[in-house]
Amino acid sequence: MTKIIIDGLGSDLGPEMVREAVELARKKLDFSAVLVGPKEVFSELVEGDDQLSLIDTREAIDNNESPALAIRRKKQSSMVLGLQALNQEGDVFLTAGSSGALLAGAYFITKRLPSFRRFALAPVLPNIHGGVLLADAGASMDSDSLLLFHFAQAASLYASQVLKKDRPKVALLNVGTEAEKGDKRSQETYTLLAASDLNFIGNVEARDIFTQDMDVLVTDGFAGNVALKSLEGTAGFILKTMKEVFLTNTKTKLGALLVKKDLKEALGKLDYRSHGGAPLLGPRKPLYKAHGNSTAETFALAIQEALAFAQSKMSERLALLGEEEGDLR
Amino acid sequence: MTKIIIDGLGSDLGPEMVREAVELARKKLDFSAVLVGPKEVFSELVEGDDQLSLIDTREAIDNNESPALAIRRKKQSSMVLGLQALNQEGDVFLTAGSSGALLAGAYFITKRLPSFRRFALAPVLPNIHGGVLLADAGASMDSDSLLLFHFAQAASLYASQVLKKDRPKVALLNVGTEAEKGDKRSQETYTLLAASDLNFIGNVEARDIFTQDMDVLVTDGFAGNVALKSLEGTAGFILKTMKEVFLTNTKTKLGALLVKKDLKEALGKLDYRSHGGAPLLGPRKPLYKAHGNSTAETFALAIQEALAFAQSKMSERLALLGEEEGDLR
Repeated sequence: MTKIIIDGLGSDLGPEMVREAVELARKKLDFSAVLVGPKEVFSELVEGDDQLSLIDTREAIDNNESPALAIRRKKQSSMVLGLQALNQEGDVFLTAGSSGALLAGAYFITKRLPSFRRFALAPVLPNIHGGVLLADAGASMDSDSLLLFHFAQAASLYASQVLKKDRPKVALLNVGTEAEKGDKRSQETYTLLAASDLNFIGNVEARDIFTQDMDVLVTDGFAGNVALKSLEGTAGFILKTMKEVFLTNTKTKLGALLVKKDLKEALGKLDYRSHGGAPLLGPRKPLYKAHGNSTAETFALAIQEALAFAQSKMSERLALLGEEEGDLR
Repeated sequence: MTKIIIDGLGSDLGPEMVREAVELARKKLDFSAVLVGPKEVFSELVEGDDQLSLIDTREAIDNNESPALAIRRKKQSSMVLGLQALNQEGDVFLTAGSSGALLAGAYFITKRLPSFRRFALAPVLPNIHGGVLLADAGASMDSDSLLLFHFAQAASLYASQVLKKDRPKVALLNVGTEAEKGDKRSQETYTLLAASDLNFIGNVEARDIFTQDMDVLVTDGFAGNVALKSLEGTAGFILKTMKEVFLTNTKTKLGALLVKKDLKEALGKLDYRSHGGAPLLGPRKPLYKAHGNSTAETFALAIQEALAFAQSKMSERLALLGEEEGDLR
């Protein structure tokens, strides 16, 4: 049975949210779990369920700490204890905690697969063809073209093995569609992707993220983060403006009443949080990042996604990939 | 009197649109102009106005040509003839034609100011504090930190001299707000900006483009282009979805009727085309790029903006800036 290690302390909503999410997930799914958090919150749940065990701790790493320092010094933090448990007995680690601390923990505790000098965070973005995996959304800076090529391989494998996409369509985020477009890194990455056995469909511009038929969008972490946050900022600003307009007066309130349901349904497709979290690609064992402000429902979804990630055994396949290629770095 | 050289052939809507725009602008503004385009379209207008003259040509450069080759080979094109006329007798050149050809023409014909190895295209993005100048939106790839610093200086000067902002607030586009965030280039650029006498307010994330109080947002052309197109794509997708929802049935059509006017007004702030075009920063003389699909009204606005750019004499000041600093490259 797949064993998931769950960080009980990372969430903005506190460990009670995590407990509720585990209860929700256990009703639907068969898995075993190690919960890392305070026994006051988790012991009752753990005692009533054979498949659950507990590592008791109260120490947390918060978003304002230096991630690398926190991982080195806070030996009793839920993140450090959880990642150590993953090394010893787990199949996947899930946290809603600090992304920076997860990254630092991945480097220092989980360690890297041979081909991954750095990691890619790969959330699913909204897209009318059923979502697109953005790799990297900002986990690594100054990635070179070979690393981006490895991100593409890992993301393509994730899209096929975990998201069940058939022969995933891989695109490169660029400033134009022609092969020679972009900076030197993009041009080199294009060449590597075009020569590979991935299903590479070419360059895609940021304006086509929602509409282009693709499964994976490869980019370095800086541009990926800019694309993601520009999308979030724009969507957030428009939806906020729309709500304000709807509340202007009696007339607009009535109008809003008539369009609200259909609008909500149509724009629901846009919600990049329809997934519970995102995988970190590159560490030796599967690490899964849930949103810091996850509700119990979305965190339960993240548990399900993290289990699917672990069950795909794709880390083992990625490790082989590195060996087949020899030392590419 | 300020003399503007106008490319009569670059627009998607044909030279007639340019003629109409010049007529509109002449009714409001005092300027002289050289129109570069076919005499069948422009001669009647030019003959009736002392301040207008004509360079007759039918040759155009289109968006599908290699820009550098086209600039070298098409000696009778409106772009080449227009840029040559700028060197000889003009104060500013305006085109709705190929951005690539304008860039190539800027390198080969207009030439560079001392501190600008490459150029920045600087459109005004929507922002609740009155617009923000994005430099660079994609004119240059592989810019280094020193070039980005010079883009910041040029954009700050443009914001104060042309857009009349008092002591412009300059921000750096980054993946987080802390000083040490981002790739090496961003960290270096941060250091240069922080040490300068610009009104540097620090890093800004792409999600805050609409809401952060700033006048200039500095970024390399790759990330700038990604930010801009992600914004365009998201806004376009939401507005299209909203329109479709409004047309679903009688109920939604009625609802739409009640909210439409207020919604249009509120979201009008979002239109990044509320400006007629964008300056290219770095060439020896002012070059101004209008949208390819400009209407006569927006192209007339671009004429007004291009004139303001020329009247600011900021190219002369930027040239001095290079000398004051010595050879920084």
